[in-house]
Amino acid sequence: MARSPMTADTPQPQSQRLPIGGTSVQNRIADAAIELFYSRGAYATTVRDITAACGLTPGALYNHFSSKEQLLFVLIRDVHLLADLDLVAAVTAAGPDPVARLAAAVRSLISHAAAPRKQARVANREYVTLTDARRREITALRRQLRSRFSEVLLAGSQDGTFVLPGGHGPTAAALTANVISTICANISEWTQENYPMTLSELQQTYVQMALRLAGATRPLQER
Amino acid sequence: MARSPMTADTPQPQSQRLPIGGTSVQNRIADAAIELFYSRGAYATTVRDITAACGLTPGALYNHFSSKEQLLFVLIRDVHLLADLDLVAAVTAAGPDPVARLAAAVRSLISHAAAPRKQARVANREYVTLTDARRREITALRRQLRSRFSEVLLAGSQDGTFVLPGGHGPTAAALTANVISTICANISEWTQENYPMTLSELQQTYVQMALRLAGATRPLQER
Repeated sequence: MARSPMTADTPQPQSQRLPIGGTSVQNRIADAAIELFYSRGAYATTVRDITAACGLTPGALYNHFSSKEQLLFVLIRDVHLLADLDLVAAVTAAGPDPVARLAAAVRSLISHAAAPRKQARVANREYVTLTDARRREITALRRQLRSRFSEVLLAGSQDGTFVLPGGHGPTAAALTANVISTICANISEWTQENYPMTLSELQQTYVQMALRLAGATRPLQER
Repeated sequence: MARSPMTADTPQPQSQRLPIGGTSVQNRIADAAIELFYSRGAYATTVRDITAACGLTPGALYNHFSSKEQLLFVLIRDVHLLADLDLVAAVTAAGPDPVARLAAAVRSLISHAAAPRKQARVANREYVTLTDARRREITALRRQLRSRFSEVLLAGSQDGTFVLPGGHGPTAAALTANVISTICANISEWTQENYPMTLSELQQTYVQMALRLAGATRPLQER
């Protein structure tokens, strides 16, 4: 990772590109939509704004998405699916130690909140504007993401690795999981002007904060 | 404090009523606007929705506010001003000990995020929809609120009370202040169904988390 501060213009790693669509037109639509949803919000963005921004006729969007809300939904869903896939892989690769697993989960979520900051912020902010089944699907994905943290915290609480705030059962694990995932995701709200840190510095500091929040009884063993 | 879980319908203490307006009509407008901004967002809410919800003719709102955005701005400004006033009073009353000051700041901000949850969520979410001078004023108020935490953390770092994550200077204090104020404010996003805690339980748990994040070298002395 290069030692330059992260900004909204930092190009995102290839692995964090959304799986959306797959054709170059669909990628252009997705990129334009993220930019517009980020800068003015999904509600204020029209289909015409999106197609104009990528040089298409207004009707062209409907060859790919049934509506603006469907496009927003697919974007937000894919942001969450991608974050969740990486999180599971990272935690699994970390092995059985709860400290290592929590650290891996934090690093993974931060890489998704900080580097592709615009799409992360759109996902975190705009999911509340979705309705009915789409809203429920995203809410379930967010709950699943938090539950990954919760499982790690609960296992570590049960084997004495963590002394969670406010108790040692599932409720304390869920609360701590919520707080840790909130602070990671919230990085997508930063302007970065105030906190010029590289991705690895961010990850290191947030791992430290997460271990403090969890009440880790021993430090992270660097591998 | 009664031992009932906090919900969106928990009546808010008199001291957390917004100072907005002052006449009963202005209070009715403010209450209806908060409810609508909360449930469907400010952008999707019309002046007509607000006046209809409080039994006024559409034009009546303009006797009190120049526009919907002006009403939103006044609401959000007052939410922040009220939170900041209470925060300063709480920190001052806590005396010189950084641990006591941080605990007081956390308790104060949580009482503003949890009890009047709807207005807190409107303020935290919708301020980004404000433009120009209004947006700058709210951003400055939010920065001021965070700086209250930052000052407490920096003082505690300098006298050895806190071992902040990632360093001991103003940057580490600002980062930690941002994280602590974010987790407090984020309580306004909860549905509370998942975390049925009383206000005092919330405060106690979050004080513990804040002291852990700050790396407090000694516990809070209960007075």
